[in-house]
Amino acid sequence: MTSLSELPIRDDLRGRSPYGAPQRPVPVALNVNENTHPVPEDVASDIVARVAAAVGGVNRYPDREFTELREAFARYLGHDLTPEQIWAANGSNEVLQHILQAFGGPGRTLLGFAPTYSMYPLLAAGTGTEYLAGTRDADYELTPETAASQIRDLDPDIVILCSPNNPTGTPLGIETIEAAYAAARGIVVVDEAYAEFLPDGVPSALTLLPGRPRLLISRTMSKAFAFAGARVGYLAADPAVVDALRLVRLPYHLSALTQAAALGALAHADEMLATVGEIRTQRDRLVSELRRLGYTPHRSGSNFVLFGGMSDPQATFEALAERGILIRDVGIPHHLRVTAGTEAETTAFLEALAALGRPGAAAAEDEAPERSQGAPVDSDL
Amino acid sequence: MTSLSELPIRDDLRGRSPYGAPQRPVPVALNVNENTHPVPEDVASDIVARVAAAVGGVNRYPDREFTELREAFARYLGHDLTPEQIWAANGSNEVLQHILQAFGGPGRTLLGFAPTYSMYPLLAAGTGTEYLAGTRDADYELTPETAASQIRDLDPDIVILCSPNNPTGTPLGIETIEAAYAAARGIVVVDEAYAEFLPDGVPSALTLLPGRPRLLISRTMSKAFAFAGARVGYLAADPAVVDALRLVRLPYHLSALTQAAALGALAHADEMLATVGEIRTQRDRLVSELRRLGYTPHRSGSNFVLFGGMSDPQATFEALAERGILIRDVGIPHHLRVTAGTEAETTAFLEALAALGRPGAAAAEDEAPERSQGAPVDSDL
Repeated sequence: MTSLSELPIRDDLRGRSPYGAPQRPVPVALNVNENTHPVPEDVASDIVARVAAAVGGVNRYPDREFTELREAFARYLGHDLTPEQIWAANGSNEVLQHILQAFGGPGRTLLGFAPTYSMYPLLAAGTGTEYLAGTRDADYELTPETAASQIRDLDPDIVILCSPNNPTGTPLGIETIEAAYAAARGIVVVDEAYAEFLPDGVPSALTLLPGRPRLLISRTMSKAFAFAGARVGYLAADPAVVDALRLVRLPYHLSALTQAAALGALAHADEMLATVGEIRTQRDRLVSELRRLGYTPHRSGSNFVLFGGMSDPQATFEALAERGILIRDVGIPHHLRVTAGTEAETTAFLEALAALGRPGAAAAEDEAPERSQGAPVDSDL
Repeated sequence: MTSLSELPIRDDLRGRSPYGAPQRPVPVALNVNENTHPVPEDVASDIVARVAAAVGGVNRYPDREFTELREAFARYLGHDLTPEQIWAANGSNEVLQHILQAFGGPGRTLLGFAPTYSMYPLLAAGTGTEYLAGTRDADYELTPETAASQIRDLDPDIVILCSPNNPTGTPLGIETIEAAYAAARGIVVVDEAYAEFLPDGVPSALTLLPGRPRLLISRTMSKAFAFAGARVGYLAADPAVVDALRLVRLPYHLSALTQAAALGALAHADEMLATVGEIRTQRDRLVSELRRLGYTPHRSGSNFVLFGGMSDPQATFEALAERGILIRDVGIPHHLRVTAGTEAETTAFLEALAALGRPGAAAAEDEAPERSQGAPVDSDL
């Protein structure tokens, strides 16, 4: 048997383990911020009909420019966007990889504000980009001053702002995005993977696009659109940015089936997004019930809640897992993260948690050993 | 309007144009080595039924390990392969990108033997790997001695052998693969994208896998399997190699729809491959008819034929395009490349070419200006 260490892999990969959380089949999976509501049946039928038509021509390469899909994303996003401003790829991870290939790479830097989405440093490593971990204010907030001063000090080639932030759920004020752009010399990416779960009326970074050619806003169909299995991420930016991404993408990177399925989902956007209100309700219920149970949930504008107050979060995680409920240890001491599921799933989680008794809230900061915040964790954009 | 040059893109991308040949809708498209036979109807129905089942759970992330698909590829390839030896990605371009990310990158080199698949240098550039263009013997052949001596001289980290070679069609002897592996210090990739079109009984590089942990054999469903639109490439190698590729792939890189569709096609492999014999027949007809018309076709073990003898290949290309027949200028002086289509498509091409009159075969080498062999051309793995 040959071992990995005997192969001539790159030095920076040596000693690393294949990435990813265990895939445990459980009755209540609230660990990777999926939309736990299936696609409505009539929408699924339309998606399948469009895929069936695509299979009829699957012996040919797909439309390399995914023209129709870019038109549909521009219509969905509104804000007077044109198809020339749209990009898409196999999940927003691939969109971010394209951005790093075009604007990052060896000798360049990416600044994120920790704790934030665990894939940012991994995507940086995969493209030879140096990752800089900035810091946040109390309660994971990020004020314009805090963001701008670190950008001025570190002078990164790319800044990434997760809005709302994963894994903390923290909404990001639009003033912070404006200040970050004004302070930055290079590219500013706003990762709006969870933007649909913000309260109504909160402006998207899309409103800032006019006149800001270095501003890139990434989105995903994985969350609000309940489309994680289809792997569709997308981006809005200046047409010149889209041209830059064309320089680095693999030709025909979006399959004909992916394009057809995404078009089907976008044709029924209202129905696909009908669960968003229900998910927000369950998220707000999680926040108030977790507080009532003695935990310390954080402010969330997303479809999940980070909560603290445990001296031994691993014990809580395992006790829930034994009851068929999978949530997530994101590597923040004394904290766990839970996705807002259906009403029944949320109830199952809250009841199981309540059955564990009062959390050891007092002095949790002193009792528990510090855990690494850099441990590889599962992807959940 | 912002221009690309005003953006902070990487210096090595400056001045480059977005990649890719024009996508012209024509009645007879024989330009990108697709299988021009559609998927049989009963197979398409099964594929759609499997995709429909996948859409039912598309709100969840796909199986990150694509376990069932790896089992199906192992069964299809035979040679006592196990699922632990299989990898797959969105097209064999992405498989090759994973290989370069794991074993290439900054400070490392990739050796190919020109003229060969035009994506190799582009994939190298995209991963910061230095591309070394080796040379071939007369008529694009590659003997064991020619390959081994260049490998010893250049000492590359990765060698890639295209077998049969694109864009020349040249079959590659298994002795050359053995000699290349023996001479190489690092990884040896055999790109068998067109292997199904070789004559019966010609051994695959898969027969060399036992005892050769640095040997990687990539395949695609785009060609023989008539599945270019679905974007499925795969690889067989030592399990340790597959572990190395897990370190660099994006999590959940293969969508649930892609996995379902590929499983459907593989379940009907015999039927999907039924057109291979017919395509070989048309390829052999192309070789003999092109010779009869006064051109100089090259030996081909693939689903296309490279032919020379034109003083002005661009004029021939345009004259055929005007008649609704699209073939390919691959940047080799005095040559064009044509895909073996259906019998009717092949007839349409040969009749249109015959109608152009005798080629200016004499002194073609002297008359035409040299054209760059490094020009960006369309992907056609």
